[in-house]
Amino acid sequence: MNWKGLRTGEKAILDHVFWASGISRDALATASSFSKSRANAAVAELLDQGLLEESGQQVPTGGRRAEVLRLSRSLGVLIGVAVGATGLEVGILSPDLAVLAHHSEPADVRDGPGPVLSRIRTLMHELLAQCRMGPKQVIAIGIGLPGPVDFDSGQLVNPPLMPQWDAYSIRDDIGTDFSAPVFVDNDVNVMALGELWRMQRSLQNFLVVKVGTGIGCGIVCHGQVYRGANGSAGDVGHICVVPDGPRCHCGNFGCVETLAAGPAIAAMATEAARAGQSDMLARMLAERGTLRLQDVAEASRAGDMAANQVIQRSGALVGQMLASVVNFFNPSHVFIGGGVSRVGPLFLAAVRQSVYQRSLALSTRHLDIQYTPLGDRAGLIGAGVLAMQESLRQAEAA
Amino acid sequence: MNWKGLRTGEKAILDHVFWASGISRDALATASSFSKSRANAAVAELLDQGLLEESGQQVPTGGRRAEVLRLSRSLGVLIGVAVGATGLEVGILSPDLAVLAHHSEPADVRDGPGPVLSRIRTLMHELLAQCRMGPKQVIAIGIGLPGPVDFDSGQLVNPPLMPQWDAYSIRDDIGTDFSAPVFVDNDVNVMALGELWRMQRSLQNFLVVKVGTGIGCGIVCHGQVYRGANGSAGDVGHICVVPDGPRCHCGNFGCVETLAAGPAIAAMATEAARAGQSDMLARMLAERGTLRLQDVAEASRAGDMAANQVIQRSGALVGQMLASVVNFFNPSHVFIGGGVSRVGPLFLAAVRQSVYQRSLALSTRHLDIQYTPLGDRAGLIGAGVLAMQESLRQAEAA
Repeated sequence: MNWKGLRTGEKAILDHVFWASGISRDALATASSFSKSRANAAVAELLDQGLLEESGQQVPTGGRRAEVLRLSRSLGVLIGVAVGATGLEVGILSPDLAVLAHHSEPADVRDGPGPVLSRIRTLMHELLAQCRMGPKQVIAIGIGLPGPVDFDSGQLVNPPLMPQWDAYSIRDDIGTDFSAPVFVDNDVNVMALGELWRMQRSLQNFLVVKVGTGIGCGIVCHGQVYRGANGSAGDVGHICVVPDGPRCHCGNFGCVETLAAGPAIAAMATEAARAGQSDMLARMLAERGTLRLQDVAEASRAGDMAANQVIQRSGALVGQMLASVVNFFNPSHVFIGGGVSRVGPLFLAAVRQSVYQRSLALSTRHLDIQYTPLGDRAGLIGAGVLAMQESLRQAEAA
Repeated sequence: MNWKGLRTGEKAILDHVFWASGISRDALATASSFSKSRANAAVAELLDQGLLEESGQQVPTGGRRAEVLRLSRSLGVLIGVAVGATGLEVGILSPDLAVLAHHSEPADVRDGPGPVLSRIRTLMHELLAQCRMGPKQVIAIGIGLPGPVDFDSGQLVNPPLMPQWDAYSIRDDIGTDFSAPVFVDNDVNVMALGELWRMQRSLQNFLVVKVGTGIGCGIVCHGQVYRGANGSAGDVGHICVVPDGPRCHCGNFGCVETLAAGPAIAAMATEAARAGQSDMLARMLAERGTLRLQDVAEASRAGDMAANQVIQRSGALVGQMLASVVNFFNPSHVFIGGGVSRVGPLFLAAVRQSVYQRSLALSTRHLDIQYTPLGDRAGLIGAGVLAMQESLRQAEAA
């Protein structure tokens, strides 16, 4: 996408419209702190250039009806990619982040970047074709990956779950098929960006915690995703919760990830099944050969006592880690996502109990702990936000 | 101070000059991203109005000498107040934060806000008189206090060390003698602000940890002090480091503050003295009736083995807490201040060892842990920065 002809004021207007996901002219003037006449002139210019459009959908505003502005669909599309340790999702999104087409499938990131990214490029082409589009219509591409990312280079740095990806140039790989700019970030940062957009930046300081194969945390501080001095901020999986606990793959002992993430939940449930503590888990184990997080979630939702104990133990340990983080960061909200969100309210209750017991009264007085409002979509929407935000930011820098 | 006649560009110039603490015209144009002619016009106007002045001091810049701009001393003075649990300091500072006069003395915040603030007002008058100034010359007043502060109201919220101060209006109290605006913040946030100014905002993401009667942390994120959703961010004293440890006054068990802060250090040293493990500590205890943090620091600096063990144990526990915080926040620097900084390199070495052992390689790769560069002055300078920064910010909002 070429934003080069734009003036600073017009870029600010586009940014506001994007983050508001549909906004009236009056609200836009207020939000951008421009005068009404200046905002209207900029909007007229952007409508002329085909960058903005008026949406047919109208919102009632107490009698009078205001037309809603949004980024023009004629701009093209965004591609969002959300890669987890055990699966990937690719989606085509409009500039206002409606999902036009998407596909998800199991994948193993340990196969290395070559095969995984090749499959992703194939899916990109297929999904674009479904939307009757081609690579030239792509404004920008956003990718979330489960490891620490150096944001400027778009490369993973010593990723523990996927060592072959270390310093691999994802941009060059995708660039063999697409000329659109490619932006890469950690998967949980991308989820946090998605939630920030969904709430139209109304929350300034919150956390998104993903509990799946690993445990990670996305941090929003002063209304922006915070990545830390080396891009490893939010690496909470190796916070110690049991000082004399088992050894973690990082070399330390009693890390919350090793005790409470998906593989630990599956291992505890397998043990319970073998010890004869649960007929349901034993039956699942016999049928499926192995237990995974989603099996334990299923058993817990069905009321299996042993599964519930496993889930509560995991929730209590995640809550113990979060208590330290909440004392330090005093967020307004903690949103929990990842595979564990399929468990339902029991996990959340255990986390809450543990946090409220261990954190200071002041930092939990208004603290809200819930599952990610965007649910399974947080990664895909967040990747779309990443693509659009960084594309607009590049335009501002140009 | 009345900034009302100022245009936006002029306010931006004043802000840059303040944070740069002396800057040439050329550097100012670069820093403010104004054109040279626009910057020069604004500077000329501000020199005319007496808000800026050229400093006699000149800096060599490779042959040619540039005149340095600074905030004019004719603007008046700032008052900085740094209150700790056991002492207070009041200082008169020029707009460019030279300390013109200051006084510190022991104080007990548990005496309540009435007597403590009355004493502070008396000191303010005395110090102003020493500078041949009066209340009318005061631009703004900044106060750091050892408890959680609601920044907008300038009041303490449930402060554990000083319960009588809860919701007391510090502004009204100081306002009986001074009409200048009063800004109040947590003592460690104020120290962080002082260090941010000293480094001319060149570090964007760092922590200041104060280890004295309590343990607290100031957070700088994206180049700004971060206070959290309820103003309690950085409340790290109640992070658990020994799950089955002793009960803390907060109600939980094994909090780092209860195990490793000044009173715990003094208690461990007293025990060692009574158990006959150290002649030096025993002699100090006999002479002084009680051991305080500074006594243990003195013994440790003199090479006393028992004192060193106490200091190392405290440092290891503070480091264990910091390891969690560093994994989460990935700061570039951790600066340690407060009474414990009198101990010397041994405490710092114990903290470092513990953090490097327990944190992830990526988050510690470039991590620098040292004592606060401003030393004992961090609180006073920070209070001056708070006063000036918020005064300029109010001007921008006006």
